[in-house]
Amino acid sequence: MGLVVQKYGGSSVADAEGIKRVAKRIVEAKKNGHQVVVVVSAMGDTTDELIDLAEQVSPIPSGREFDMLLTAGERISMALLAMAIKNLGHEAQSFTGSQAGVITDSVHNKARIIDVTPGRIRESIDAGNIAIVAGFQGVSQDKKDITTLGRGGSDTTAVALAAALDAEVCEIYTDVDGVFTADPRVVKKARKIDWISFEDMLELASSGSKVLLHRCVEYARRYNIPIHVRSSFSGLKGTWVSNEPQGDQPMEQAIISGVAHDTSEAKITVVGVPDKPGEAAAIFRTISDAELNIDMVVQNVSAASTGLTDISFTLPKTDGHKAMSALSKAQSLIGFDSLRYDDQIAKISLVGAGMRTNPGVTATFFEALSNAGVNIELISTSEIRISVVTRADDVKEAVRAVHTAFGLDSDSVEAVVYGGTGR
Amino acid sequence: MGLVVQKYGGSSVADAEGIKRVAKRIVEAKKNGHQVVVVVSAMGDTTDELIDLAEQVSPIPSGREFDMLLTAGERISMALLAMAIKNLGHEAQSFTGSQAGVITDSVHNKARIIDVTPGRIRESIDAGNIAIVAGFQGVSQDKKDITTLGRGGSDTTAVALAAALDAEVCEIYTDVDGVFTADPRVVKKARKIDWISFEDMLELASSGSKVLLHRCVEYARRYNIPIHVRSSFSGLKGTWVSNEPQGDQPMEQAIISGVAHDTSEAKITVVGVPDKPGEAAAIFRTISDAELNIDMVVQNVSAASTGLTDISFTLPKTDGHKAMSALSKAQSLIGFDSLRYDDQIAKISLVGAGMRTNPGVTATFFEALSNAGVNIELISTSEIRISVVTRADDVKEAVRAVHTAFGLDSDSVEAVVYGGTGR
Repeated sequence: MGLVVQKYGGSSVADAEGIKRVAKRIVEAKKNGHQVVVVVSAMGDTTDELIDLAEQVSPIPSGREFDMLLTAGERISMALLAMAIKNLGHEAQSFTGSQAGVITDSVHNKARIIDVTPGRIRESIDAGNIAIVAGFQGVSQDKKDITTLGRGGSDTTAVALAAALDAEVCEIYTDVDGVFTADPRVVKKARKIDWISFEDMLELASSGSKVLLHRCVEYARRYNIPIHVRSSFSGLKGTWVSNEPQGDQPMEQAIISGVAHDTSEAKITVVGVPDKPGEAAAIFRTISDAELNIDMVVQNVSAASTGLTDISFTLPKTDGHKAMSALSKAQSLIGFDSLRYDDQIAKISLVGAGMRTNPGVTATFFEALSNAGVNIELISTSEIRISVVTRADDVKEAVRAVHTAFGLDSDSVEAVVYGGTGR
Repeated sequence: MGLVVQKYGGSSVADAEGIKRVAKRIVEAKKNGHQVVVVVSAMGDTTDELIDLAEQVSPIPSGREFDMLLTAGERISMALLAMAIKNLGHEAQSFTGSQAGVITDSVHNKARIIDVTPGRIRESIDAGNIAIVAGFQGVSQDKKDITTLGRGGSDTTAVALAAALDAEVCEIYTDVDGVFTADPRVVKKARKIDWISFEDMLELASSGSKVLLHRCVEYARRYNIPIHVRSSFSGLKGTWVSNEPQGDQPMEQAIISGVAHDTSEAKITVVGVPDKPGEAAAIFRTISDAELNIDMVVQNVSAASTGLTDISFTLPKTDGHKAMSALSKAQSLIGFDSLRYDDQIAKISLVGAGMRTNPGVTATFFEALSNAGVNIELISTSEIRISVVTRADDVKEAVRAVHTAFGLDSDSVEAVVYGGTGR
């Protein structure tokens, strides 16, 4: 039996009862003969409460101090978890990100891991302890300041530690049973996926699936660390994410892994752009100078009569205002007619490596949407993904239609637990 | 203008408003040309809330993990305080005990400071920042584990940093205006003391005065760091504690510094002890083996007829049960008749270096108590202190009578703010 890294999110350790339940599960793994390293997020609402305090004190809190503040959250949950484990008769020690050797760059609030030097963790587990590590945090290489890793930071901590410690598996415990073929809140007959490749999981994550973040999957792929996403509330097997299926995992990958949807984006259309070289570049340089990321981009064929074209792109709704005002300011410089903003859109994506070898996939996808009466506004594709933009009102209907068309529906409705997401 | 260390207790930073008020005061000191290092305790009830969480998870929390948990409290308050200062347009950086170089032994929950290596603090203030340091915490020299300093730990952090940084003064901000000649809740006409020697302050602290703890004063005396105890709620000058008065402080020390009282002790009487060598030693070895500290000890003259004597001693009520059971177990071995336990006692102490040269002090003290009808049960003296034990019911009457007898009453009643005590 080798080393297992387990990660528990904030909803799994929301209160004292949750911490005790998680402690029992950790002790089970230890009893089964594993060396166990646990990464834990802050308890339930702790982070929100700390952010609220910061806002009361300062409208624009300093990045360094904000990180110092937020990292108090994991300090609390990890110490309590270690206590709860010791209370079950097993030895446990908690470690901050800094003590665990999580070395990052100096970009506060969204630092990137540069290196992991887990000497103290190795020493602790070799001495028979269960090591509890604060997720989401590290220490900057140059200034030795406390940093946080931003969204999905705890999952990334877990995968990074698993890589540095050469773990057998990184178990990500959450409040759902695994990765599903679609969001079970929308598609009642969504199936839990037993195994999915890193490649497909990356596409699902960037298409709106929220179970694992892109960053964490990317890290796991780079170091080839199998991830097992599962529920901390049930004893069920979850979803394995890895390069190749192992053991009793299905030997062949499904043609289609799943249908993801995303209603967090808005669409901006730049109307009446002169169809000449450099125009699109000027528009996207403006967006990029405002430090905004865009997702899909579509340029219409220009009308022969006017020599003008329209360019549409999508981006997170939260960046919509910033993008519109940056473009407005540059209107005379770039030379377009007008701007249109639309935040009533949804993106629906079909993901699966099988697309490469199954030419009928695109046709089936569009037929399913058409039969469901869903109008398509934008299309964008990668080698293993097709994404379309539709009206937000159509999203549920569209996802269900596509899910059924590709034979993804389960025979039964699976019970799924929902809760908050950790960090 | 030199370097000032300021310490703010939990009641001064109980909420966002308190933090903003304290931030303004800190910025004032900086504007006056000082280099400023601030030591801060956890906000108001944070520590109690964390202790409550620990109790929900484990009946006997591990010392190491308990320290990891509690230190989250200062992490929150110091980050918020740094944000609030930056919001006022001044640069501030917060540092954990470990980052500030507070090196301790490995005794969790009541670690002692071994060394302070404030390189990062010096660097930060030399770069023009206000440095905010977490009180109450450090890092153990051998294991690099997080430790806490126990009761009065933040005051000790402040004095230790002041010593290591060669500060002009260590300002301890609290919720009262300074050190008084008696507890103003008991004696309405108690006077604020403008200056008091380390020596007298040490005796007051060990006699029940709660404004400064013995440990912190002892540290300040060893490194000759003047302490200025003052209110964070008013702009008033407080009490200076130092070797010699300075500047506009009174040049001559009062004969009597103050009257302290303490109702936190109990009295144990060992009845019918054979009056022969080794008996007292056996009793106090028993107490010492149980790791209990005692305060006053009195042995009566033995009755000639029986050859038996009684030995009485006082100790904290919280240790009463442990002491009684240790002595009971040793009864046959030591050979005494019985034990009596009395927790309805008070200790009243008169403190002043002037006692050395004013022989009438003892007589005046006992006369005052006698005139007030207060019966004395035990007496113990040091060179600059007389303490007596009385009934707990008599304590207020006794303190007032003594305060008046030594001319300590103020002409007027001073306004005093009360609140919780920090750590």
